[in-house]
Amino acid sequence: MVFVKRKAHFNAAHRLHNPEKSEEWNKRVYGKCNHPNWHGHNYIIEVVVAGEPDPDTGYVIDLSKLYDIIEEQIIEKCDHKNLNLDVDFLDGILPSTENLVKAFYFQLKEPIEKACVEGGKLYAVKLHETERNAAEYCPYLLK
Amino acid sequence: MVFVKRKAHFNAAHRLHNPEKSEEWNKRVYGKCNHPNWHGHNYIIEVVVAGEPDPDTGYVIDLSKLYDIIEEQIIEKCDHKNLNLDVDFLDGILPSTENLVKAFYFQLKEPIEKACVEGGKLYAVKLHETERNAAEYCPYLLK
Amino acid sequence: MVFVKRKAHFNAAHRLHNPEKSEEWNKRVYGKCNHPNWHGHNYIIEVVVAGEPDPDTGYVIDLSKLYDIIEEQIIEKCDHKNLNLDVDFLDGILPSTENLVKAFYFQLKEPIEKACVEGGKLYAVKLHETERNAAEYCPYLLK
Amino acid sequence: MVFVKRKAHFNAAHRLHNPEKSEEWNKRVYGKCNHPNWHGHNYIIEVVVAGEPDPDTGYVIDLSKLYDIIEEQIIEKCDHKNLNLDVDFLDGILPSTENLVKAFYFQLKEPIEKACVEGGKLYAVKLHETERNAAEYCPYLLK
Amino acid sequence: MVFVKRKAHFNAAHRLHNPEKSEEWNKRVYGKCNHPNWHGHNYIIEVVVAGEPDPDTGYVIDLSKLYDIIEEQIIEKCDHKNLNLDVDFLDGILPSTENLVKAFYFQLKEPIEKACVEGGKLYAVKLHETERNAAEYCPYLLK
Amino acid sequence: MVFVKRKAHFNAAHRLHNPEKSEEWNKRVYGKCNHPNWHGHNYIIEVVVAGEPDPDTGYVIDLSKLYDIIEEQIIEKCDHKNLNLDVDFLDGILPSTENLVKAFYFQLKEPIEKACVEGGKLYAVKLHETERNAAEYCPYLLK
Repeated sequence: MVFVKRKAHFNAAHRLHNPEKSEEWNKRVYGKCNHPNWHGHNYIIEVVVAGEPDPDTGYVIDLSKLYDIIEEQIIEKCDHKNLNLDVDFLDGILPSTENLVKAFYFQLKEPIEKACVEGGKLYAVKLHETERNAAEYCPYLLK
Repeated sequence: MVFVKRKAHFNAAHRLHNPEKSEEWNKRVYGKCNHPNWHGHNYIIEVVVAGEPDPDTGYVIDLSKLYDIIEEQIIEKCDHKNLNLDVDFLDGILPSTENLVKAFYFQLKEPIEKACVEGGKLYAVKLHETERNAAEYCPYLLK
Repeated sequence: MVFVKRKAHFNAAHRLHNPEKSEEWNKRVYGKCNHPNWHGHNYIIEVVVAGEPDPDTGYVIDLSKLYDIIEEQIIEKCDHKNLNLDVDFLDGILPSTENLVKAFYFQLKEPIEKACVEGGKLYAVKLHETERNAAEYCPYLLK
Repeated sequence: MVFVKRKAHFNAAHRLHNPEKSEEWNKRVYGKCNHPNWHGHNYIIEVVVAGEPDPDTGYVIDLSKLYDIIEEQIIEKCDHKNLNLDVDFLDGILPSTENLVKAFYFQLKEPIEKACVEGGKLYAVKLHETERNAAEYCPYLLK
Repeated sequence: MVFVKRKAHFNAAHRLHNPEKSEEWNKRVYGKCNHPNWHGHNYIIEVVVAGEPDPDTGYVIDLSKLYDIIEEQIIEKCDHKNLNLDVDFLDGILPSTENLVKAFYFQLKEPIEKACVEGGKLYAVKLHETERNAAEYCPYLLK
Repeated sequence: MVFVKRKAHFNAAHRLHNPEKSEEWNKRVYGKCNHPNWHGHNYIIEVVVAGEPDPDTGYVIDLSKLYDIIEEQIIEKCDHKNLNLDVDFLDGILPSTENLVKAFYFQLKEPIEKACVEGGKLYAVKLHETERNAAEYCPYLLK
């Protein structure tokens, strides 16, 4: 199995706030991430696809097609947007890095697995919120 | 002259919008940066102080004091905040990277020049909005 | 399973020297890393915690609590210190990157698994000694 | 198991072109990567070796020996070379990142497993073609 | 004066070879950079524009317009190309980093100074050939 | 004028301590940087040479010669060493980043200006002590 990886970037506003909980709970749990006027990040998304390279092309997936899928499914919907208010597939999802990366994985899985070599898989998605904080969703580890 | 440099980080939401202009003007000029629900960035600020190192300490400025000043003057006021709504010294300033970096320079100048060696100067402030976009204010070049 | 990651930094002196071996053995095996007057590094530690995000908070672990644990267990004990002489939990451990990362994993495991979601695990610890050299301890791969 | 990692760099020219296919097929499949006058990259190779640290040395593998092997097996053959024309062990291999990383893995496996601790393994090789595109070969995941 | 900066990337093949000199001279002077089958790099270009921010827009230059100019003048002509053979404005220029960055400056100067605020200047162009090697052309320093 | 830049790395131990001052003064002024058992850093040195490219070679200075000079004058003397105890040209110099960068500049000036084009100058030396802290010596700015 070979793993191919592609990074992409988007900038967005968000706020950690659970609307089913009290103001006090939200302030205590989320601290400054709960600030009502939003804050934001330069997110970096990294997509990992696994498969056997196609013998004709040498590709697990054409990385420019992979970028087009990330662009269409994630960047166009999230870039310069508010992740709590503006993104259809994040509706009702609290935008912690953990929840975002899982939502991005399932948003990308079907179109990527159609475009890659037969038997290829969306192996993992990683999301960097800052240079120091990140999350990864990978259903193939620690089952 | 020796130049010492210290980086710091903050995350904030903002929006490019000139309230004295029409909606059409704002959309045309700022494009997706005008999005009404805000977007955000992981800003990196880099502060450059120039001076002759103190013969006793070897310091132009103690970098931990420099960090405390950046923390007090910039990070506490801007981190996890909305740059259009929440920051006193940015009131009335359109938060383009150019305008932000100039405002940061003048916010930092006095406390830094008090804390550094005699004759030392706040030489420049740089602000990275993304990995690819940045601005710098330096009154000592291109006079 | 979602994996969350947090980076932290510390600066330390060390020396590779096995006191049970001769000077010649140490010089031959460790070369310039055996230098008697020490040398040092800017270490980057990366901690990976795995678990199902809490449905209320969206968190596998609050990353600021994770940082506090890394700070208390690793940074306060190792930063601006000598890893051969000053750190209680490294006593008797030869400070190769391999041995350090394993010691850091077991130093962090209990407090992190208490602070994260139920069923969560300290999945891996990575330690970068330089931009080019690193080690990782992960008991869940290659069993 | 502890994993040790070492990065190395080389610069090379290449071109994606399958000589068994028509010009049209090659242009359609590879786009600008098929340009006949070549293009090139600053490749970063990252080698991951897994094993139990030797109790005497604290090493899974001496990282300077690991670097010598990467230098001898990969860098000397590929640096400032044309990957389609100049490298013996890539003869007949279409130099996609996927195919390169797999060829590098098998080029490195034997000498590394001779030089590391008993039971140690070449766990994975990663190859960054650009800051955004990479591939990894690891025979121990997703079997 | 505020300085705004924008980075862009391209991948290209090149070779250092002075056709007016002998093979021996070229091999001695350029070493492996003279390899006849070419080699290549991931170049990073950084463009610095100086001016007073426009009071209406807050911009020295709209960074998306700046990117369009870099794209049109540099990236489209150089990306996935051979810098010795394929680029009109580099015809007859030996593609050392020094010569490239100077040629890029003059290729960019006129369109950028038309698109920026009145009195604005193309202050400098920087070109990174590798992570360790770079050149800068700036006509305003060291006159 | 074209500016060429070369980065190099070394790892070293040091301690901030002024032997002419009391223990109390040293502890108060330098805090944890005064720790008696040393600490250390991965230093990055960046050397900037200015000149008109040679018309035959296209070089201000051959970057591999520049690297050899940095290697001989700085890296061999400082790498895996103690900057307070082991380096001849730092004898009696308190190893703050400010003092180090100035000493490195004068250590490099003569051999670099002999090896570069006529009229070329060692323009600046930058020294990164950590990812966030750096100093630069440049005698041509802010005179």
